[in-house]
Amino acid sequence: MTSFDVVVIGGGPAGERAAVQAARAGKQVAVIEREHVVGGACINWGTIPSKTLRESALFVYGLTRNRLHGIRSEITDEITVADFMYRERIVVQRELELINDSLDRYRIEVLQGQARFADPHTVALTGVNGQTRMLLTAEVIVIATGSRPSHPADVPFDERCVFDSDTILRLPRIPRSMTVLGAGVIGIEYAAIFAALGLQVTLVDTRERLLPYFDREIAEILTRELRRLGIVLVHNDRHRTISKVRDEPPLVRCRTEGGNLFESDVLLYCVGRDGNTRELGLESIGIKPDERGLLTVNDHFQTSIPHIYAVGDVIGYPALASTSMDQGRKAMRHAFNLPGSKDRSEMLPFAIYSIPEASYIGETEEQLKERGADYVCGRGRYEMNARGQIIGDQFGLLKLVFEGPENLLRGVHVVGQAASELIHIGQALMMADATAAQIADTLYNYPTLSDMYRHAALEALRARRLVPGG
Amino acid sequence: MTSFDVVVIGGGPAGERAAVQAARAGKQVAVIEREHVVGGACINWGTIPSKTLRESALFVYGLTRNRLHGIRSEITDEITVADFMYRERIVVQRELELINDSLDRYRIEVLQGQARFADPHTVALTGVNGQTRMLLTAEVIVIATGSRPSHPADVPFDERCVFDSDTILRLPRIPRSMTVLGAGVIGIEYAAIFAALGLQVTLVDTRERLLPYFDREIAEILTRELRRLGIVLVHNDRHRTISKVRDEPPLVRCRTEGGNLFESDVLLYCVGRDGNTRELGLESIGIKPDERGLLTVNDHFQTSIPHIYAVGDVIGYPALASTSMDQGRKAMRHAFNLPGSKDRSEMLPFAIYSIPEASYIGETEEQLKERGADYVCGRGRYEMNARGQIIGDQFGLLKLVFEGPENLLRGVHVVGQAASELIHIGQALMMADATAAQIADTLYNYPTLSDMYRHAALEALRARRLVPGG
Repeated sequence: MTSFDVVVIGGGPAGERAAVQAARAGKQVAVIEREHVVGGACINWGTIPSKTLRESALFVYGLTRNRLHGIRSEITDEITVADFMYRERIVVQRELELINDSLDRYRIEVLQGQARFADPHTVALTGVNGQTRMLLTAEVIVIATGSRPSHPADVPFDERCVFDSDTILRLPRIPRSMTVLGAGVIGIEYAAIFAALGLQVTLVDTRERLLPYFDREIAEILTRELRRLGIVLVHNDRHRTISKVRDEPPLVRCRTEGGNLFESDVLLYCVGRDGNTRELGLESIGIKPDERGLLTVNDHFQTSIPHIYAVGDVIGYPALASTSMDQGRKAMRHAFNLPGSKDRSEMLPFAIYSIPEASYIGETEEQLKERGADYVCGRGRYEMNARGQIIGDQFGLLKLVFEGPENLLRGVHVVGQAASELIHIGQALMMADATAAQIADTLYNYPTLSDMYRHAALEALRARRLVPGG
Repeated sequence: MTSFDVVVIGGGPAGERAAVQAARAGKQVAVIEREHVVGGACINWGTIPSKTLRESALFVYGLTRNRLHGIRSEITDEITVADFMYRERIVVQRELELINDSLDRYRIEVLQGQARFADPHTVALTGVNGQTRMLLTAEVIVIATGSRPSHPADVPFDERCVFDSDTILRLPRIPRSMTVLGAGVIGIEYAAIFAALGLQVTLVDTRERLLPYFDREIAEILTRELRRLGIVLVHNDRHRTISKVRDEPPLVRCRTEGGNLFESDVLLYCVGRDGNTRELGLESIGIKPDERGLLTVNDHFQTSIPHIYAVGDVIGYPALASTSMDQGRKAMRHAFNLPGSKDRSEMLPFAIYSIPEASYIGETEEQLKERGADYVCGRGRYEMNARGQIIGDQFGLLKLVFEGPENLLRGVHVVGQAASELIHIGQALMMADATAAQIADTLYNYPTLSDMYRHAALEALRARRLVPGG
């Protein structure tokens, strides 16, 4: 029996951050990881690999779109997904080194194996043969086991014609067409990446609009841009049957509830993810996951047993690397009553790495309207911005939402190139309690996309008739 | 005789911003512009055109560097500078529309012609024939006439072999080699652009190191990166003779004081710029430009005659579009005693659009050291950042400088991709009086370059032994 202050189950972003936060506070921490490497889906088969492919897709898309006279380029037929991901191994390796360095620095014990609750304070570590190798007791236990793609019985996953988001990057060749079922963050990102690579992509959304938590105007621009990328976007529909027609060359057929028939080389199914909770023995201690295996937690990320926390993908939405890290940290702050910075959850940005990117922080216009706030919006358009013009982004938008007589910045919403980076200017401005007048007076480098903040703030002041020319 | 509250001489960024600032305060404003379009060098033959060419250069450089298996590309021999600048006209047109819209909105009178002082409160507007067309009197006069490349008598400018920064973009064909004399912002930017386009570039700097006002560490990385781009960089040297060998194909020879001999297809001379003050009749009112035609002003941008202000390139360093705009605005605030936001001049960012970009805001490490401050630095490295890894930037650096027991952010220094944009996060953080602890606790989208702020702040805290593992 080995005893720790904290045992973290799962070494992805949420678990790592929880472990580091606790260790920084002087706690003895162990992390149990089922795989042979830490990093979770984020590093190993999700976030990082897909963003690496995305970078190549942007390059290929640039080649086809920026037709510079005097430059000839062609893409050969034999190109593979691996060709496009040539940097992936380097990136993954480096990120793993960083995580391992961090775990080492804080003297966090990393144990490889499957975790299973023996009682509410004891976790059994079992090896491949199912034998218990070790019993760990802890004051606090963190479940950060992540999630995996849902595999409904009627979807014939085979890794030749039908893929999930964990296997899609193992595509041997670049197909000509793809049907993507599910328009969550993962579905949209892959649809955009493969469309940019030149595939004919059909994206089937079970809802009536994309990304309902986004500011409506931003989501509408993103929807239009995905269509401009060549994606056939179908809303309010879902599969009825999926059947493989043949293996070589691959062909798959999808009939939908809405009466559509989609035929494509391959199909990517990414409707929902299930929490990795099945093998944890949670029933024995009285914690009950929902029907998808996801755990329910309170505002402090506590499960129904107060000293057992759950963070990251295993608690569902929003299931982003960044938010998961934040949850891991907050859980440990709560567990050990650690001081934190001002806990302003609205300061958490959200990004989707579609093409173009979209990102937001704070409140949407709809939220301000709903709570009856005295608000005003200001917009900076990429096509009105010198840098936006230079890079040829004609449809991007930066939208700021201000509230009250002081015009305090309440929300920032961006769609367009570098949206995921630009949002952090807004994050820091919100930290500064910046007003529209202050932002309108700020001097930005020229030419930069950042300068749209100034334009947007000026537009808001004009709408308030605080500067002439409105 | 027509009378105004303000007459602005010159319609570039400094003049436009001064005019708008005064008009927003209800003043009657006229702008006199010598050219047929407003916008100045920034829009018409400087900033915007060079940044458009830079974008193509980055694309070409990416083609040659990102050798993706399965993509073949080649650049044909007949390619021209115009091919690379195909977007330029659109961008310039759009920027001019924006400026004209802004001048219209504030009902600013724009008059085309040459301005000449008749007395300290009167400006004569003359046409092409030198006849006075109009006399304008004003309470306040702003000189924002900009600058032009210096043309020493011993440099044989001919627009075939020897160019200045106003004419270099009229290069008919892309040459194979270029000697750039002068390593100021313009010289470095063009050297990088043409090196990325594949030219053999030699850059001759009169000083012993590049960009002495930059943080030394950042300037050193930039220097190393320019060399990696293939630029031959020579310090502490200047031309002794420049002689054209032949016109077709072009060949030019430069012998230096340091005993070097540089032969290249073309030569770009960009050592110094002269203020556009010769035709203003300044001697008649007792204002004396220096030997380069530049004007001297006090902290409020007043010349020796208090109601005559001078802003922008005509007062010399730093001569950036963004700083010039700020000067125009500040001059009018002073003239009419207008309220401004906290006047923190350290909040002004500075950027150079070399390859890679570099940018800073606030104080350098050297400045803090010199004033005996209790400071600490923290660094975020592109190669340690997931997004930096994905885009393959292995040498970039974000350096934060913090001061005092609170570790207040005092300076941000970046070299690497998107430096000119990333700096604005630091600008807003400085506005928020952010501390290292707050930045270390901020949650950024993943993967983003912005996340280096968090890493850099953590490193600083570790150096202060405020977190373990230092």
